[in-house]
Amino acid sequence: MKLWQKNTDANQAVDRFTVGHDREMDLFLAEADVLGSLAHTRMLNSIGLLGDEDLQAVQRELKKIHADIVAGRFTIDEGIEDVHSQVEFLLTERIGDAGKKIHSGRSRNDQVLVDLRIFLRRQIKEIVEDVESLFRLLQSLSDRYNEVLMPGYTHLQIAMPSSFGLWLGAYAESLVDDTEMLHAAYRICNKNPLGSAAGYGSSFPLNRTMTTELLGFDTLSYNVVYAQMGRGKTERIMAQAMSSVAATLARLAMDNTMFLNQNFNFISYPAELTTGSSIMPHKKNPDVWELIRGKCNLIQGLPNQIAMMTTNLPIGYNRDLQQLKEVLFPAVAELRSCLQMAHYMLENLSVKEDILNDPKYDYLFSVEVVNDLVLHGTPFREAYKKVGLDIENGTFKAPHTVHHTHEGSIGNLCTQQIAALMDAQLARFHFERVEAAEAALVQP
Amino acid sequence: MKLWQKNTDANQAVDRFTVGHDREMDLFLAEADVLGSLAHTRMLNSIGLLGDEDLQAVQRELKKIHADIVAGRFTIDEGIEDVHSQVEFLLTERIGDAGKKIHSGRSRNDQVLVDLRIFLRRQIKEIVEDVESLFRLLQSLSDRYNEVLMPGYTHLQIAMPSSFGLWLGAYAESLVDDTEMLHAAYRICNKNPLGSAAGYGSSFPLNRTMTTELLGFDTLSYNVVYAQMGRGKTERIMAQAMSSVAATLARLAMDNTMFLNQNFNFISYPAELTTGSSIMPHKKNPDVWELIRGKCNLIQGLPNQIAMMTTNLPIGYNRDLQQLKEVLFPAVAELRSCLQMAHYMLENLSVKEDILNDPKYDYLFSVEVVNDLVLHGTPFREAYKKVGLDIENGTFKAPHTVHHTHEGSIGNLCTQQIAALMDAQLARFHFERVEAAEAALVQP
Amino acid sequence: MKLWQKNTDANQAVDRFTVGHDREMDLFLAEADVLGSLAHTRMLNSIGLLGDEDLQAVQRELKKIHADIVAGRFTIDEGIEDVHSQVEFLLTERIGDAGKKIHSGRSRNDQVLVDLRIFLRRQIKEIVEDVESLFRLLQSLSDRYNEVLMPGYTHLQIAMPSSFGLWLGAYAESLVDDTEMLHAAYRICNKNPLGSAAGYGSSFPLNRTMTTELLGFDTLSYNVVYAQMGRGKTERIMAQAMSSVAATLARLAMDNTMFLNQNFNFISYPAELTTGSSIMPHKKNPDVWELIRGKCNLIQGLPNQIAMMTTNLPIGYNRDLQQLKEVLFPAVAELRSCLQMAHYMLENLSVKEDILNDPKYDYLFSVEVVNDLVLHGTPFREAYKKVGLDIENGTFKAPHTVHHTHEGSIGNLCTQQIAALMDAQLARFHFERVEAAEAALVQP
Amino acid sequence: MKLWQKNTDANQAVDRFTVGHDREMDLFLAEADVLGSLAHTRMLNSIGLLGDEDLQAVQRELKKIHADIVAGRFTIDEGIEDVHSQVEFLLTERIGDAGKKIHSGRSRNDQVLVDLRIFLRRQIKEIVEDVESLFRLLQSLSDRYNEVLMPGYTHLQIAMPSSFGLWLGAYAESLVDDTEMLHAAYRICNKNPLGSAAGYGSSFPLNRTMTTELLGFDTLSYNVVYAQMGRGKTERIMAQAMSSVAATLARLAMDNTMFLNQNFNFISYPAELTTGSSIMPHKKNPDVWELIRGKCNLIQGLPNQIAMMTTNLPIGYNRDLQQLKEVLFPAVAELRSCLQMAHYMLENLSVKEDILNDPKYDYLFSVEVVNDLVLHGTPFREAYKKVGLDIENGTFKAPHTVHHTHEGSIGNLCTQQIAALMDAQLARFHFERVEAAEAALVQP
Repeated sequence: MKLWQKNTDANQAVDRFTVGHDREMDLFLAEADVLGSLAHTRMLNSIGLLGDEDLQAVQRELKKIHADIVAGRFTIDEGIEDVHSQVEFLLTERIGDAGKKIHSGRSRNDQVLVDLRIFLRRQIKEIVEDVESLFRLLQSLSDRYNEVLMPGYTHLQIAMPSSFGLWLGAYAESLVDDTEMLHAAYRICNKNPLGSAAGYGSSFPLNRTMTTELLGFDTLSYNVVYAQMGRGKTERIMAQAMSSVAATLARLAMDNTMFLNQNFNFISYPAELTTGSSIMPHKKNPDVWELIRGKCNLIQGLPNQIAMMTTNLPIGYNRDLQQLKEVLFPAVAELRSCLQMAHYMLENLSVKEDILNDPKYDYLFSVEVVNDLVLHGTPFREAYKKVGLDIENGTFKAPHTVHHTHEGSIGNLCTQQIAALMDAQLARFHFERVEAAEAALVQP
Repeated sequence: MKLWQKNTDANQAVDRFTVGHDREMDLFLAEADVLGSLAHTRMLNSIGLLGDEDLQAVQRELKKIHADIVAGRFTIDEGIEDVHSQVEFLLTERIGDAGKKIHSGRSRNDQVLVDLRIFLRRQIKEIVEDVESLFRLLQSLSDRYNEVLMPGYTHLQIAMPSSFGLWLGAYAESLVDDTEMLHAAYRICNKNPLGSAAGYGSSFPLNRTMTTELLGFDTLSYNVVYAQMGRGKTERIMAQAMSSVAATLARLAMDNTMFLNQNFNFISYPAELTTGSSIMPHKKNPDVWELIRGKCNLIQGLPNQIAMMTTNLPIGYNRDLQQLKEVLFPAVAELRSCLQMAHYMLENLSVKEDILNDPKYDYLFSVEVVNDLVLHGTPFREAYKKVGLDIENGTFKAPHTVHHTHEGSIGNLCTQQIAALMDAQLARFHFERVEAAEAALVQP
Repeated sequence: MKLWQKNTDANQAVDRFTVGHDREMDLFLAEADVLGSLAHTRMLNSIGLLGDEDLQAVQRELKKIHADIVAGRFTIDEGIEDVHSQVEFLLTERIGDAGKKIHSGRSRNDQVLVDLRIFLRRQIKEIVEDVESLFRLLQSLSDRYNEVLMPGYTHLQIAMPSSFGLWLGAYAESLVDDTEMLHAAYRICNKNPLGSAAGYGSSFPLNRTMTTELLGFDTLSYNVVYAQMGRGKTERIMAQAMSSVAATLARLAMDNTMFLNQNFNFISYPAELTTGSSIMPHKKNPDVWELIRGKCNLIQGLPNQIAMMTTNLPIGYNRDLQQLKEVLFPAVAELRSCLQMAHYMLENLSVKEDILNDPKYDYLFSVEVVNDLVLHGTPFREAYKKVGLDIENGTFKAPHTVHHTHEGSIGNLCTQQIAALMDAQLARFHFERVEAAEAALVQP
Repeated sequence: MKLWQKNTDANQAVDRFTVGHDREMDLFLAEADVLGSLAHTRMLNSIGLLGDEDLQAVQRELKKIHADIVAGRFTIDEGIEDVHSQVEFLLTERIGDAGKKIHSGRSRNDQVLVDLRIFLRRQIKEIVEDVESLFRLLQSLSDRYNEVLMPGYTHLQIAMPSSFGLWLGAYAESLVDDTEMLHAAYRICNKNPLGSAAGYGSSFPLNRTMTTELLGFDTLSYNVVYAQMGRGKTERIMAQAMSSVAATLARLAMDNTMFLNQNFNFISYPAELTTGSSIMPHKKNPDVWELIRGKCNLIQGLPNQIAMMTTNLPIGYNRDLQQLKEVLFPAVAELRSCLQMAHYMLENLSVKEDILNDPKYDYLFSVEVVNDLVLHGTPFREAYKKVGLDIENGTFKAPHTVHHTHEGSIGNLCTQQIAALMDAQLARFHFERVEAAEAALVQP
């Protein structure tokens, strides 16, 4: 069954090719689709395009379908093209012709548009929750291990003393900035495209402000041509926000594989979180971190994939856009699993306590010594030369302690201030508004 | 002269290869570099690392250098490695050893970091100004041409009536969302990394909060490891924000080349804004739009280039990051010229008034007729069938007028509401704060 | 069951995350895996590491498994980690301990390496066959429609006369160059990595030349470190070759959607190969071409995705590489379906015969007229001016016929010469050699 | 002066924007442009479109211009749009109207096309020469250091014994496969597009086979629409071939930075090939390798940039393609300098001799011991268990020698066989044919 099917028998090969994985992908949108229809039909009723009785029937059944979706009992039948058709089919089966009326003043195009935004804003919320968990863990580990020194590198050459607290705290603060990108994506998503029809508006006297409020959107995606143009753009911006989190995780993963390497030997994980080798009995491979790195680097390429698919497309809806679901939806789930696995790993992290006792790290302290001389009156140039000579002559003595006091340094991690930045970020989302709106829509 | 040069003669080939276009690129950073030094030296004085007299001399000369830079009189000498060395060299030449003291408690690494952020926040401001100009123009054109109908396409098939006002207004609203991305980039840029030294902090008792305030930053990039990690990340996020504007412009350019094509023939430009052909005397080629499209599509690929260069780099500064200047800086200038050329072209746009009189566009009105029947009582399914039959039988009559009333449609463009969204966006930047701080620093 | 599992209970979450879609992806490799084992075990026997009786049993059962795979009767059981384990499991179940001996002198790493190459060379063969079919069709259409003129565009402005034969023939010749890339990929794939073990060789006296011959490889991937380094690189090069075909298809698809657009109206397809609209009864949307365009543009981004995942990885195998299967394998199938759907569509193509009778295309002939004057003695500059004036004064007369005679022009398509280029390309692959070797291995 | 300039004064801003860096980029094409004109005019003469006297004058002056270009004495004057105009301008200045006749039967479009291919095939030749030098050096180093053992890693965990010879030899063999891609690009470049005019052929009776032979092309790019379509495609394929070399270099660079790191400490370079730090007196930073990595990773992204600019462009020449010169030409020079710097560095490489004496590497030999037990009759499973237990109990004894004998392993590097593969690759280019043809054209 296809909404647009008239008399011609659609060619089977064409059918398989054009449907592709649409049914599978549309399951991601099912809940959003019903929420959209709940709001749309109330609006249709308010402008006289759906009678009170029909509205009541439609709302009742849509809420049942919603409950089924939430409970995991919803599927898209074999012969049904997409989620919108499936919902309409179920409604018509249950309440007759009234079920068909939900399509008035609406095109599948703006249905997909609104579904996508309801879905993506929910996904952002869940990503943000995972990000927050990882942030809290990183901050607590940062505090716990702040005194435990490790080498700091530049050009991958040993450079100056760092600490595990500094290292882990860096990733916590990185997530604060990533949340900025997620917030930008959220604000762009949280605008109502419903009512744009096929991208050129409708001659029905729709009340788009009403559906905007019912669905908890911040505002409208006003211009109907732009509402349609938002397809592809919304996905690309979502992917860019995701790529920022992914880049943070991929770097953290890279560090972990390096610090686990026996030449560094800075950290360890319990055996059950690593994997072995079929021929090397001593191996403890950090597969989880390697896969986080690989998956997150793929996600880093996601915005490019979306741009490649949407660049230079002619104005108006093009079927290419349908492919974006397959590109984006599984990646959202992958990113969340990477966030959760990174959390799981770090909960089990052990750090080595006495790394800097190894004399090969003595040079780490050269800058400290230079600065100390300067603070005690030696001109910088002289201090710098003296330490250089001591090093050349093998008479350099490393102090093995670090006295940093400024903001963000080993002696002053500013964990609270960074937490305050994150709290301020989180407060800007106002997820509760959307939740309240969605809850009101499905309230029996 | 190189800051790190000791006794070994640096090999010439290595030299040429490693310096590359650095000197040229560093000119972009000169003003920012002096601003950073003005703040840093005041802070050094406040913590007793620079005497009052030295401070006075340094500030006086730095302000002169700043004036030279603004006046276009600053260059980086042949033998000098980078902008930081050039400034130090000039200072030392003029005020002797005091000039060298500006380097205390600072590494070239955090100098580049702070320069980059001062530079990028300024660039964002200028991009935002160009975006605002184009937005205002698009809105005024959208209002002027709202009644002028044109075909709307889906699947590049004629679909429903659109209007030039709807089309141009769509791009105005697109710029509102692009500004969201620019704002996220601005907030991420506008955090102070100064004081992170080589990425592991300093044993000097720096007051990073003081330089944060002096330089007009919103807050600190606290964790010193993260401050360094921000290199590459800041550029990538800047590029992502730029790619959003670029995607809007590239689409607008694609539309223009299509609508100028003789098969569409919807718009025209004065001959002097198009170019001719060496063998086809009748050609009026839209080279400007084609180049905007090409340049903006390149910018769309920019975040990927940056990700490719930074993925899986080991922790801490790596010299690869130096290359990012060449990748990003010219692109910022390109984007601004594209914004300005798009503005210039659109100021000279002519639209064709009577496009829909051509009977080939009659089908555009089929949905209007279906909806009209529905609004007058015919069930949708019947109305849809009747219009379908009329079309098949050649008896379909197109009304040639459009009565859309809902928000964002032809009859109700919501130009004011969209302007209000843009105004709200612009107000979030608070550029005046940064300007005031920078002005205070260079005040004689 | 995992090959490397010792005593520790692998954590379940880690398990799910690390296995991912591996089992599903490994099915693609099943046939290749058995071919590899058939060759490896014969070599083991030749160097005395597998007795004659064991060899006989192993070969017999491997051939049965091969037959099952070809017949679609092979699956990877729930608890089994990968295809290699599944094959070993089946063998051991059937012939006891001898089944375990196939793992001697081999690591899963080089098993995957050799499987991948056997799989990819087969995929290239099948892509080449699809490419050849499309090429032959394009050539025959090119010949059929050579006299049917259409406008040629530059800058999307009408420029000079073209013909459907020229247009379709261009894509045929494009596929010749794409085959060059496929051939390069084929040669790079068709080198034997087996025997590299975990990437550092083996202390067993393996005879890699023997497996090279048995498996029909052109030569060895000699250096064992490079054999391992080929992972990721082989996939990227395969993806680059695929991207070349994809770029050709995506352009062809773009042309089709444009020429089907009512403003061009150059071509048409039967209704059953297009799709309709839920609210616009007159629409015939070219969804198939739009999806070919979208899918092929995704494939164009594939090499970048692979580069993003492999850039800056440390030397030696890294688990990230496992993810490449999910990125590449489904894309190969997508490309093949795009090639086949493009073929299917073009078989049903109708072209419009009298396009250039429309006076809006008269200017197409301006260059013809200029050249004709030149050929009859008028200096070029004068001829150019005269035609320019005629056009300005509205007195230009278009000849409506084209007399091109040079190689590759409308009057001289060189279809045979282009076919000869393609035939020469195809002959370079020598697929028959590989087929003979594979057939010999599974011969009962 | 612009070839297409008629009466309208081209707007200055438009001018600046559209010319861009074209003049600078066109210098790269100057020699190729003159070669093209030398062939084209001889062909024009052969078909009666250029008199003998004119031909003689034109050839004489073109050869002088060629000599000037080769000697570095050629520039494009300020007011001149491009290289084609500059050459025509010089000719006309020197020999009057005959100079203008070289434009007959040719468009700037096919001039750029043929210039590009002549230029790119030359660049490929030079890249191949740089690749060959590096290959020979890597092979000789591989032989020199084959006995010097180093750890081999998988998952960045110490795994099995490797050697410097194995490591360096791997990169030599990698370059063999990269040459395959360069060869595919060469064959695609080395086809003659001249005569395609603006992409739709010419009514002049051109003899394209003649210019093909004169210019030393392998064959024609026959179909004129495809010849034009080759623009963008040729660049993308060139970039893909370059990306393959770049990926090899970037990996080699990554290895070098890692092995130079003090935790690995496997290799070293003379001080003058490293750079220092402004505050850390002991640093010897591998900037050259880091920049090779950064530049090569940028080149890895190049094909994506070109794809992003060309995807979904309408059929026929579009001005966007002009931008590709700026994207591709400087990258070719960058790649060559990276190849040369890598060579320069490796000539100065020192390797550490006794790495594996450090007991932390003992586990590297576990597989050797297992295999040895197996070769002496212990079943694999028992051997594997015994070694596992020895390791657990601390009783494992590492043999510290490696006896690998198979092809491509430490004991049998197959340097000669790999050299033979490279020689066979190099022989396929037949650069001498092109050189002979070009020399004949400029012969006085």
